Amino acid sequence: MKGAEQSWTRIHCDIDFDRDGKQVSYLQVPHSRNDSAWGVVRIPIMVIKNGDGPGTLLTGGVHGDEYEGPIALAELARTLTVEAVSGRVIIIPSLHYPACVAGARVSPIDGRDLNRSFPGDAAGSFAQMLAHFVRHRLLPLVTTNIDLHSGGRSLDCMPCTMSHLLDDAATLTRTRALASAFGAPLHVMNREVDGAFTFQSTAEQLGVISLSSELGGSGIVSLEGLEIARRGLRRALAHLGNIDAVLAPLQTPTRFMEIAAATDYGFAPVSGIYGPRIPLGATVKPGEVLGEIHSMDDPWREPIPVLASRSGMLWCQRGQGLISAGDASAVVVAEWMGDQS
Amino acid sequence: MKGAEQSWTRIHCDIDFDRDGKQVSYLQVPHSRNDSAWGVVRIPIMVIKNGDGPGTLLTGGVHGDEYEGPIALAELARTLTVEAVSGRVIIIPSLHYPACVAGARVSPIDGRDLNRSFPGDAAGSFAQMLAHFVRHRLLPLVTTNIDLHSGGRSLDCMPCTMSHLLDDAATLTRTRALASAFGAPLHVMNREVDGAFTFQSTAEQLGVISLSSELGGSGIVSLEGLEIARRGLRRALAHLGNIDAVLAPLQTPTRFMEIAAATDYGFAPVSGIYGPRIPLGATVKPGEVLGEIHSMDDPWREPIPVLASRSGMLWCQRGQGLISAGDASAVVVAEWMGDQS
Amino acid sequence: MKGAEQSWTRIHCDIDFDRDGKQVSYLQVPHSRNDSAWGVVRIPIMVIKNGDGPGTLLTGGVHGDEYEGPIALAELARTLTVEAVSGRVIIIPSLHYPACVAGARVSPIDGRDLNRSFPGDAAGSFAQMLAHFVRHRLLPLVTTNIDLHSGGRSLDCMPCTMSHLLDDAATLTRTRALASAFGAPLHVMNREVDGAFTFQSTAEQLGVISLSSELGGSGIVSLEGLEIARRGLRRALAHLGNIDAVLAPLQTPTRFMEIAAATDYGFAPVSGIYGPRIPLGATVKPGEVLGEIHSMDDPWREPIPVLASRSGMLWCQRGQGLISAGDASAVVVAEWMGDQS
Amino acid sequence: MKGAEQSWTRIHCDIDFDRDGKQVSYLQVPHSRNDSAWGVVRIPIMVIKNGDGPGTLLTGGVHGDEYEGPIALAELARTLTVEAVSGRVIIIPSLHYPACVAGARVSPIDGRDLNRSFPGDAAGSFAQMLAHFVRHRLLPLVTTNIDLHSGGRSLDCMPCTMSHLLDDAATLTRTRALASAFGAPLHVMNREVDGAFTFQSTAEQLGVISLSSELGGSGIVSLEGLEIARRGLRRALAHLGNIDAVLAPLQTPTRFMEIAAATDYGFAPVSGIYGPRIPLGATVKPGEVLGEIHSMDDPWREPIPVLASRSGMLWCQRGQGLISAGDASAVVVAEWMGDQS
Amino acid sequence: MKGAEQSWTRIHCDIDFDRDGKQVSYLQVPHSRNDSAWGVVRIPIMVIKNGDGPGTLLTGGVHGDEYEGPIALAELARTLTVEAVSGRVIIIPSLHYPACVAGARVSPIDGRDLNRSFPGDAAGSFAQMLAHFVRHRLLPLVTTNIDLHSGGRSLDCMPCTMSHLLDDAATLTRTRALASAFGAPLHVMNREVDGAFTFQSTAEQLGVISLSSELGGSGIVSLEGLEIARRGLRRALAHLGNIDAVLAPLQTPTRFMEIAAATDYGFAPVSGIYGPRIPLGATVKPGEVLGEIHSMDDPWREPIPVLASRSGMLWCQRGQGLISAGDASAVVVAEWMGDQS
Amino acid sequence: MKGAEQSWTRIHCDIDFDRDGKQVSYLQVPHSRNDSAWGVVRIPIMVIKNGDGPGTLLTGGVHGDEYEGPIALAELARTLTVEAVSGRVIIIPSLHYPACVAGARVSPIDGRDLNRSFPGDAAGSFAQMLAHFVRHRLLPLVTTNIDLHSGGRSLDCMPCTMSHLLDDAATLTRTRALASAFGAPLHVMNREVDGAFTFQSTAEQLGVISLSSELGGSGIVSLEGLEIARRGLRRALAHLGNIDAVLAPLQTPTRFMEIAAATDYGFAPVSGIYGPRIPLGATVKPGEVLGEIHSMDDPWREPIPVLASRSGMLWCQRGQGLISAGDASAVVVAEWMGDQS
Repeated sequence: MKGAEQSWTRIHCDIDFDRDGKQVSYLQVPHSRNDSAWGVVRIPIMVIKNGDGPGTLLTGGVHGDEYEGPIALAELARTLTVEAVSGRVIIIPSLHYPACVAGARVSPIDGRDLNRSFPGDAAGSFAQMLAHFVRHRLLPLVTTNIDLHSGGRSLDCMPCTMSHLLDDAATLTRTRALASAFGAPLHVMNREVDGAFTFQSTAEQLGVISLSSELGGSGIVSLEGLEIARRGLRRALAHLGNIDAVLAPLQTPTRFMEIAAATDYGFAPVSGIYGPRIPLGATVKPGEVLGEIHSMDDPWREPIPVLASRSGMLWCQRGQGLISAGDASAVVVAEWMGDQS
Repeated sequence: MKGAEQSWTRIHCDIDFDRDGKQVSYLQVPHSRNDSAWGVVRIPIMVIKNGDGPGTLLTGGVHGDEYEGPIALAELARTLTVEAVSGRVIIIPSLHYPACVAGARVSPIDGRDLNRSFPGDAAGSFAQMLAHFVRHRLLPLVTTNIDLHSGGRSLDCMPCTMSHLLDDAATLTRTRALASAFGAPLHVMNREVDGAFTFQSTAEQLGVISLSSELGGSGIVSLEGLEIARRGLRRALAHLGNIDAVLAPLQTPTRFMEIAAATDYGFAPVSGIYGPRIPLGATVKPGEVLGEIHSMDDPWREPIPVLASRSGMLWCQRGQGLISAGDASAVVVAEWMGDQS
Repeated sequence: MKGAEQSWTRIHCDIDFDRDGKQVSYLQVPHSRNDSAWGVVRIPIMVIKNGDGPGTLLTGGVHGDEYEGPIALAELARTLTVEAVSGRVIIIPSLHYPACVAGARVSPIDGRDLNRSFPGDAAGSFAQMLAHFVRHRLLPLVTTNIDLHSGGRSLDCMPCTMSHLLDDAATLTRTRALASAFGAPLHVMNREVDGAFTFQSTAEQLGVISLSSELGGSGIVSLEGLEIARRGLRRALAHLGNIDAVLAPLQTPTRFMEIAAATDYGFAPVSGIYGPRIPLGATVKPGEVLGEIHSMDDPWREPIPVLASRSGMLWCQRGQGLISAGDASAVVVAEWMGDQS
Repeated sequence: MKGAEQSWTRIHCDIDFDRDGKQVSYLQVPHSRNDSAWGVVRIPIMVIKNGDGPGTLLTGGVHGDEYEGPIALAELARTLTVEAVSGRVIIIPSLHYPACVAGARVSPIDGRDLNRSFPGDAAGSFAQMLAHFVRHRLLPLVTTNIDLHSGGRSLDCMPCTMSHLLDDAATLTRTRALASAFGAPLHVMNREVDGAFTFQSTAEQLGVISLSSELGGSGIVSLEGLEIARRGLRRALAHLGNIDAVLAPLQTPTRFMEIAAATDYGFAPVSGIYGPRIPLGATVKPGEVLGEIHSMDDPWREPIPVLASRSGMLWCQRGQGLISAGDASAVVVAEWMGDQS
Repeated sequence: MKGAEQSWTRIHCDIDFDRDGKQVSYLQVPHSRNDSAWGVVRIPIMVIKNGDGPGTLLTGGVHGDEYEGPIALAELARTLTVEAVSGRVIIIPSLHYPACVAGARVSPIDGRDLNRSFPGDAAGSFAQMLAHFVRHRLLPLVTTNIDLHSGGRSLDCMPCTMSHLLDDAATLTRTRALASAFGAPLHVMNREVDGAFTFQSTAEQLGVISLSSELGGSGIVSLEGLEIARRGLRRALAHLGNIDAVLAPLQTPTRFMEIAAATDYGFAPVSGIYGPRIPLGATVKPGEVLGEIHSMDDPWREPIPVLASRSGMLWCQRGQGLISAGDASAVVVAEWMGDQS
Repeated sequence: MKGAEQSWTRIHCDIDFDRDGKQVSYLQVPHSRNDSAWGVVRIPIMVIKNGDGPGTLLTGGVHGDEYEGPIALAELARTLTVEAVSGRVIIIPSLHYPACVAGARVSPIDGRDLNRSFPGDAAGSFAQMLAHFVRHRLLPLVTTNIDLHSGGRSLDCMPCTMSHLLDDAATLTRTRALASAFGAPLHVMNREVDGAFTFQSTAEQLGVISLSSELGGSGIVSLEGLEIARRGLRRALAHLGNIDAVLAPLQTPTRFMEIAAATDYGFAPVSGIYGPRIPLGATVKPGEVLGEIHSMDDPWREPIPVLASRSGMLWCQRGQGLISAGDASAVVVAEWMGDQS
């Protein structure tokens, strides 16, 4: 594999990243099993290169229960021709493949969340080897990374793109421009909680512009989120100069919101069934009841309310009925005021 | 336990069903475990009796990943007073309790679907014992049963009530009247596939009027489905004469639809990710693409379309991303023409 | 296999129960496994027959986490000679063998409690086949059955023998005489809760005198319980006429107690850690605190007390720290008043 | 589904067995899962019918780790044309489909060995429903059944066909003629141990001529066994009159052997590694060492020999290294002397 | 979180350790699960601070099957007032919380023994992150640590406190003084086997005085051990100057014993049931039979005795019936002779 | 333990490697379990030392489903006397003991392949601790290592010895001489794929001559492979000077073959059943069909052929029926041409 810095890895890929043309193949990750001594996990990857130009890495399936990204990315890969591309576009629709075929957030092989396994370890477990490969072989090839997520089984989000509230103004501006081009109805920014090991933080440390998303949730495929991804990916490639297209003006420009504080996540005080009281997108005031946690073993007891800690818009809530104490139950976002400063 | 025919059971319940007043207690189902020699599973139950009058059994949680019923039934039980009730109302919010606390359709104890375990077996496994108790101790006490379901983790349904396309015209009429009173926006009727062991079929065989529902799905709590259940339960009790209330006219009367044939279920031809192409509620024509099944191991291959086998309305589709060959992927319902005959 | 009524069974045993002498072999229970097409589970059994005389079946290991019986029975089997025996003595130290080697109450094969699987089924699962064999091939060969139990992992009992409060006075008298001969410090009698499928009930229905025990508990080997079993088995065989020995008078005659009501079991109202407040053997009054249930997720909350429902002696309590709502937490027994009537 | 006696079943199949032509479809067995409420397991089936003529049922995959049958049967089904067939030929290459895709002998759904689940139960577990369908819907359509087995993971057999030592001389003769036509190098006959619930016994009770096989073992695909199956199936169909072909004379006629007694199975006295001492096909004398069982925890101890109980030919031995006490370790067969009587 | 050296950690805790007053909250340990994307495990913690004074860390539940510590520590935390305390007292009743709610020694999340996971790793698995937090955020705040253990499910110990046989005389003297104040009937000292990764060794390396205990065992709650802990904790706090109380003289002063050699642990030579022959507390001579290991598969074989390797007192033995070759079966302790030197 | 460099380890072994004589004992690897607080895994080891002379380490059971090595090594250890040996011979028949008793390639404790866990970690998981011990305590004691492997459950190999295609000519010559002395019919050399963490690579880095093998496969015990190992081990010890014996000339000298490229492994393009088309040992041409992959869910589809990528001899193929996409299906080896250069 040429074109990336040659740090040692156990993952094999027969693609030549420096060669012009469209190549499809696999990342072959060694996985010795009781029923396969020399077994590998094969992760489909596509690369198109056409002369000089920007490098862009498009990924989905970092979590295996988030489906809009894998569908939209595979569709893009099928339709993208060498002729239409300038520079280098790398697409991996289902990056954490074993989790994807299991429909699970974390790996059925090593139990790890790939998005808490960066920057990885070439001699580590499955997710660690994979993160290391992305960090050392793929990110050096690109200047932009779009990693498509959804809420997964446990969260239900209004479809949006996401990025970090970065201290560096120039990078923030470039990231916001990318988000505006992508054109999701909503863009949510946060200072990531527990972000030291994420894909996005790792990309940022390498100076790669990094955009993420939440395209729906509850482990289902959102028709709306899917459309946003389909349109957004092409718009983003045009914005970046990877494809030649005129960006049509959006009917509704992207609205920029932020998660200001850790307390905005509304962690559940007890376990039970989370029953919402208001729909996603509703405007809320501090102290307003967002939902209630109902007891199954003592149904005759009044449910415990979950209250809004701040004013804003209800953007995300529990993605399935059962909730455990400590789980995020409902996230309220606020209008981003960054432009004023 | 008085008031039910005294067929033998291993399940203990200290409620006197013939006594006037409001009683809450448990069904105690024996479950010998490695960590509890004389263990029982306790299933919360509430009974209100007030003089003579109709008997009504209200149940939820037959499947453990269907949450609107348990929430609405517990709320009803908490607020219903003896004074407000005529006759006998029995409420069990989470009937298949071990499945409910696991958030699972089938029992974590015996792997059975309770709704395929009727009429049950007093000497059988957990679900069989429980079905037997409902059949022999509870159904004989009532003339109506409302058993609230939702789509569960694997299906996403437009909220509705449901009942069987019964051959007996009088029973059909009484059931439709109950559905109209309940007042969901939609009522779907079917000839149940594989229905020999269901709760509903068992109730019907005993002459009990039986109403079911699908109040949402995907394993989440539908705000809309919850409201429909809350309102519908009280309207149904009023209609039945269990509570004294005037039924306000509905803004939109219930629309009656039917599932005419087994082929309406759209079983998936291959495994993969099910991506919908049109929203629930859309009108479809025969051969129209309802959704597509996307391959994760070969994402460069075109997805396999799932086509509508008939015209009608898309009422239900796959409730999570992953789908296996043979799973129901999308159900189209047709306007019920029964009134014409 | 001769000497038992020849009802059909899949279990093979090459012992001739009618032949005089000492034979050791196995019950061979078919168990088709992925790694053994024609696999069997082998359960050690010993028979001594010497002319005419009473038939006695001695069993242990009906639950796999109750160890005093298996140890004492194997020791007895090793030391018993043909010459010393009159009639027929059958010993199976570890009857539910797969549970015994797993140290588990219920079967690792079919998840069943053998003592809730009687009278069994020749075409059923492992425990059902085994129960059926005991019922149809072994019990018909004997007039007495002593089935040694302990509290198992979940219960801690003061060592005792046990029997049912039988309605038939003659059988009760014979059973009590056997218990007096066995000579445990305590004999506890109960009307079994959920007893329809037990070994003991099945034996009683066949007219076999049936003695059980609780020789300790918590999944450990009680030194005291072991001594009681060692001495009691030989005394019982002498009493029954199977061996020729003079019963030495006991220093302390057996004390007869009873469990009068289901409420005596002190079922736990909540889950947590059960911390006892008084030792086993203590005399208690109604309302006295027997123990408390401590919360791990809210340790700052006062523990929930478990109160005695009646006066008597604390005979049994939770055998490990964790307890679930509905588990028996503490059993109070009362002096048996049967002699007065 | 026409053409079979219409006993009630939950299994759906849209094939019309009375219609002339070649049809491929599925048996659809209901299997409610947490991730598929209305899930089914689909088992591929092919039927060719062409006018009147004999009915033959060809099955493989009763155990999921026996592969020669499924391969040879699918190949036959692909190549067989309606024109070439007289009567009715039904082919199910992988009957116990969930076990087949798991490569396991017993069902991953209900843990049952399908070949110990006959005659089945329409209201039972997966394997029981399936056995019931075969018994009541398929066997009544045919006069001959060939059910292809191999040794599976736990046994390694010299490739052969098999049948029961039947008491009825006429049936025995017809079965032997079918075996001679099939033309495997070896045909082994036995009085089945624990055979009350097998497919073969059930077919025999219905008067269906029944041939089985062991085409290799150890969970691998035997090249030799595969060739025997490919050739034998066509020869058998010709012999039965289902296809029109002249049976070429065999270079080596089939040798008929028998397993005379249960002791011929050489059950392992202890657990360990089974190391063979002589190859399959060797001639052995009583007392000869067939193999040894080696201890892993005490490797310094001499291994325990397994001795031949009789003279004959070593036909089958342990199919993997590990062996448990009670497992069959080596089977010696003897020349069949039936012709003499 | 103030007051501890600010090494990086993923664990969040909103307590201000430098603030005077009583605070209760949680350690929030990130744990991404399939059913909770942003899930955390919440571990209850209490801190009382009142001016300057000694810092003491009190912990229980390092192993989840040791219950006396969690009960006594929660009770202490509930009753301790700010006014009564000088300095800083930190109480975590159930430190390895996921193991505690599972009643298991090792973590159900990562399979690790927390007490073999020190000094931990901020980027490691659950137990490693937790150990790292204790090492870097809590131990720096204190001069004394009391970590309460019991024998757990596998060991049954006479209640005692424990500490290491330290080479530093001054630290040994201070530790012994703390043990004498605590006042358990027994104090056992050892040179820890395999101790490189324990909590206690880590605390010692930081110069923190460290006391441990074994308050019972077998996975049950010892009434005696609980009383020792309740009394000892208050006495220890008084001795350390955290609370103001006069230490009443003990009726029986603490007896100091030691485990001199690795051979004192009596590792089991074979697997089976461990049957003790003498009670805990008995005086033994070298070669005396402590217990026997009984075979379940060959019960006719004499049991294998376990002999005392030295004279002393039987202090600890197997805590459940089953034992595996290599497990500690019985530990003999000797009078500590350290005072003489 | 003397005689090895004293790097820190948690593994205990009471053997004195510098003492003359024959010693048998265990490696005791700490493994804290829920049912054994201070549990260890005991791995049998034998050492013979007799004066000065070469040091040789003989190991088997690095993978737990490869049985010829453990059998042959234990047999050798039982028969080898001190008098017959010069220097030091260390034998560990079942090195990865927990995998061996499970019959599994990877560890049931930590899921790791021991042969991908070198050079190990003293503070790591089970396999890592074990690899570290071998690397730091055993390899420094020897100049030669013979580590016996077979194909395991997933591969079926023609029996052979193996070594790496080393760049250092002198080492290659010495290794080939050892292979010639061992005298297997075949010796296969390769540049190991993914070899950074193997036992063999680690030994080579220490300058230890390292021979491996594949003695059969499919998880069975190969009679032929066993004989090759029995004879080869004694011949190798004679060659090395550890025992005094004259090497009889081989009837057929060892044939040296090589695996030239990664593409020689024939990775499966799809999942299904692998049916071979030609036997092991056959000569093949590029493009020749080695086997086919058969579909179980669509048996009516033609199987997918696996073609030879080069000419040579078919040496190894899939060892069980099921195969997954990416698994090695058939390996073709070529005559080694190294002598010519």
